[in-house]
Amino acid sequence: MNAIDPTDLRQTIATAQERNRARATRLDKWSYLRFAAKSGPMLEGTVIFDNETAIWGYPKIGRIVQLRTGIPGQFEQPFWVEEKIDGYNVRIFRYRSDTLAITRRGYICPFTTDRLDDLIDKTIFDDHPELVLCAEVAGPENPYNEGSPPFIAEDIRLFAFDLMRRNRPGFLPHPKKMRLLEDYGIPITPQYGKFQTTDWESVKAVISRLDPEGREGIVLKEDSPRDYRVKYVTGHSNISDIRVSDASIQQLPAEFYMHRDLRLVLFMEEHGIEPTPELYRELGKSLIDGALETVKDFREHHQVFHAFRCRFRQRRNAELMMSTMRERLGHSHSRQRRLEKEGDFYVLEFVKELPRTTGLLGHLLGGGVVFD
Amino acid sequence: MNAIDPTDLRQTIATAQERNRARATRLDKWSYLRFAAKSGPMLEGTVIFDNETAIWGYPKIGRIVQLRTGIPGQFEQPFWVEEKIDGYNVRIFRYRSDTLAITRRGYICPFTTDRLDDLIDKTIFDDHPELVLCAEVAGPENPYNEGSPPFIAEDIRLFAFDLMRRNRPGFLPHPKKMRLLEDYGIPITPQYGKFQTTDWESVKAVISRLDPEGREGIVLKEDSPRDYRVKYVTGHSNISDIRVSDASIQQLPAEFYMHRDLRLVLFMEEHGIEPTPELYRELGKSLIDGALETVKDFREHHQVFHAFRCRFRQRRNAELMMSTMRERLGHSHSRQRRLEKEGDFYVLEFVKELPRTTGLLGHLLGGGVVFD
Repeated sequence: MNAIDPTDLRQTIATAQERNRARATRLDKWSYLRFAAKSGPMLEGTVIFDNETAIWGYPKIGRIVQLRTGIPGQFEQPFWVEEKIDGYNVRIFRYRSDTLAITRRGYICPFTTDRLDDLIDKTIFDDHPELVLCAEVAGPENPYNEGSPPFIAEDIRLFAFDLMRRNRPGFLPHPKKMRLLEDYGIPITPQYGKFQTTDWESVKAVISRLDPEGREGIVLKEDSPRDYRVKYVTGHSNISDIRVSDASIQQLPAEFYMHRDLRLVLFMEEHGIEPTPELYRELGKSLIDGALETVKDFREHHQVFHAFRCRFRQRRNAELMMSTMRERLGHSHSRQRRLEKEGDFYVLEFVKELPRTTGLLGHLLGGGVVFD
Repeated sequence: MNAIDPTDLRQTIATAQERNRARATRLDKWSYLRFAAKSGPMLEGTVIFDNETAIWGYPKIGRIVQLRTGIPGQFEQPFWVEEKIDGYNVRIFRYRSDTLAITRRGYICPFTTDRLDDLIDKTIFDDHPELVLCAEVAGPENPYNEGSPPFIAEDIRLFAFDLMRRNRPGFLPHPKKMRLLEDYGIPITPQYGKFQTTDWESVKAVISRLDPEGREGIVLKEDSPRDYRVKYVTGHSNISDIRVSDASIQQLPAEFYMHRDLRLVLFMEEHGIEPTPELYRELGKSLIDGALETVKDFREHHQVFHAFRCRFRQRRNAELMMSTMRERLGHSHSRQRRLEKEGDFYVLEFVKELPRTTGLLGHLLGGGVVFD
């Protein structure tokens, strides 16, 4: 796709600011505009520096829950299958002399930005300053997600899956993306090949390998100018999501859990998986243990917190992480527990409160009445 | 409480009609006003005949999920404990020469009305035409609920729990209610006695007996002029509700399931019930089997239906049941399967469609995309 014309960009910004969709955002020395919602051609999460450099928002990807009908129904051309990693989405780019990582919603992430030298070879931006690297960052020591892939034992890893260019929507075609990522040794999300729209059984075979390994699923990307995409997850990822989120009971919408329950059932039905006592037990356990732990925690602390830990190269970035979190969650809802040098890293430990869970449990355990 | 003044009643009706909260409703030869929502002193489900005879709506009862704090927190005076039966709520009263049963929402129920001679001694209304009998009707052969108490093997039974009087809100005091119900041999919901506000442990002991029997729970009614009430359910009733409703996946709100999951966990925590593999399995099974059956049903029939069966004394009332249901659910969403004489009864078999479940499964199994 073509780059946006500078006049059009300025007009888009003006309109979005009038509608309060583009918001002045600041972290440390960086000031930029962040799109809190879609406006004109700009997706939610778009950021703009100096009114002239736009990093497009990463588009939402729809989900299919049936391979047999979903693949021929959604795709007109052959498609690539890439692994979907259970982490958080970042876009990485060069701004002046800095390389920055922003979250899906368009906030500079002090943690990911701090660790870029550990994650990628940044010289890709020396040679191609117009590139925007789209990737998933995953692992047990991250400041956002409670779950992480079972194959990452500590810290974090990065899995690149797309390249964009500044000031335009859309992605580089698959072969060009692969060549660039490989040239610079950027870690790439696992690739499962190119498939025909009639070949849903081969895709099913990929999923049958990923499911027992506890992997999340796949993203299917059409090899065509429209570059259409859908995602599809494994049966076990549903139970795993429920388990990880059970402690957040009532903080997340009830649909979070029930959509996953339905997806699990639809997965079983399409893949011919008969329910077993083990599967029942695993699902039941995923809906009891976390919530029970949360209730016991509340009895003890009168608040519900989730604990996070992550490693920084620079102390200053850990401090920025805490201050940006406090700003976004509210001062009373996050708290630093520890920030200390351990070997080559500064280890930050902090907690986030679940205010809705805390409020509801306070009411219920205090003997309050509900009408439902 | 005092009866409403006829002038006030007419004013209340006029206001409610202006706001479209009182709606002209007709079944067979009976025409009446039905309150589709609260208006002035009238609760939702209130019905009014001839602009002069009001049957007050049955009030909503709040729920506690903790006995230790909930009982002293909610009650100021000793309270009666009655069993909560898992059925549907009716109010029964004399209108001219007929004895009628209306549902919670204020519709005359042709089924319950048909079966009144089997359920109660109607002479109570000969002697006390001003009385309104409030009861739960429960059993596997009913036209509304899919679940029913495990101790009712067939057909239906009635369990009275309150007496009201026409044209006024509120209930007769407990001793007076019991005397009248006993005098006429009306079946009464099981009574567990009167308790002090400090005596939550004795209430807990009642619940510990009800829980393993698969009974739903209790209603606690303060023995005081304000007659304050709350309800409390057993741990197992939550799993049982989920199991019974799992086939209705996406038809019921996700909160239906997740509230019950949380209540189960809170019940376990207060009652010191440690999770066992059996409990996990039971909960997991309750969230898989029904939905899986529904998906398989959809594959076969391209629609999701739930089947009901109930016994009538008069064929005419079965026909009225079908016509009133078709009117309320829409013609395509309910269908008569069979209406035949069997012994002393006309047995009606019919199905209700779950349109949201049908719609969603059609989209998903057809390969559609969702954004969530």
